[in-house]
Amino acid sequence: MKINSLPVIPYYAVIFTSLKTSMDHEGYAAMADKMFSLAAIQPGFLCVETARESMGITVSYWESEEAIFHWKENLEHLMAQELGIEKWYEYYIVRVCKVERQYSFQKENGLHTIKE
Amino acid sequence: MKINSLPVIPYYAVIFTSLKTSMDHEGYAAMADKMFSLAAIQPGFLCVETARESMGITVSYWESEEAIFHWKENLEHLMAQELGIEKWYEYYIVRVCKVERQYSFQKENGLHTIKE
Repeated sequence: MKINSLPVIPYYAVIFTSLKTSMDHEGYAAMADKMFSLAAIQPGFLCVETARESMGITVSYWESEEAIFHWKENLEHLMAQELGIEKWYEYYIVRVCKVERQYSFQKENGLHTIKE
Repeated sequence: MKINSLPVIPYYAVIFTSLKTSMDHEGYAAMADKMFSLAAIQPGFLCVETARESMGITVSYWESEEAIFHWKENLEHLMAQELGIEKWYEYYIVRVCKVERQYSFQKENGLHTIKE
């Protein structure tokens, strides 16, 4: 994420919050990497941010709701979603949101930049 | 987050994405805990989700934009924001979003529940 190039609002965010099962996670990391790569080449994809501690949060950003719909229905992604339900996730929540406002802060060479 | 009790849409999400500096983080964890506790008692607060790996993602959920505005202007929170800029963050991005759709999946006693 280069904060100098935030997308122009309004755009869309998909907040994917998840808790993994305590069981077998074989194949999870490889599948996650594959889905990140595949999402990145979809029409309307903007960027993605992800972090996991006890829970995982992945936020992907998209130009339009249509782009989100097409990504959800992508065949390889559908297979990954099935595996997620069968094997990997205890629970997950998906929220589709319209990004209405944004601002950023950056520290660089001793300078503080705040962009609205 | 109890997924059986997702807030009623529409509501608001504040996505706070951050990278910490490599310098002194003294006081950060205590301040973060304090801010989580303080946010939770603000009018209009719904819930919060957080995870940090290389980057941190904290998403707080609110009933209204007004509730978000009041939280941003809370005096103790303003002091925390100042310390964040001075000491702790290399960069951060704040996005204010309207949650328009949501669904969840939960595995329980061998049962799969998907709620739209």
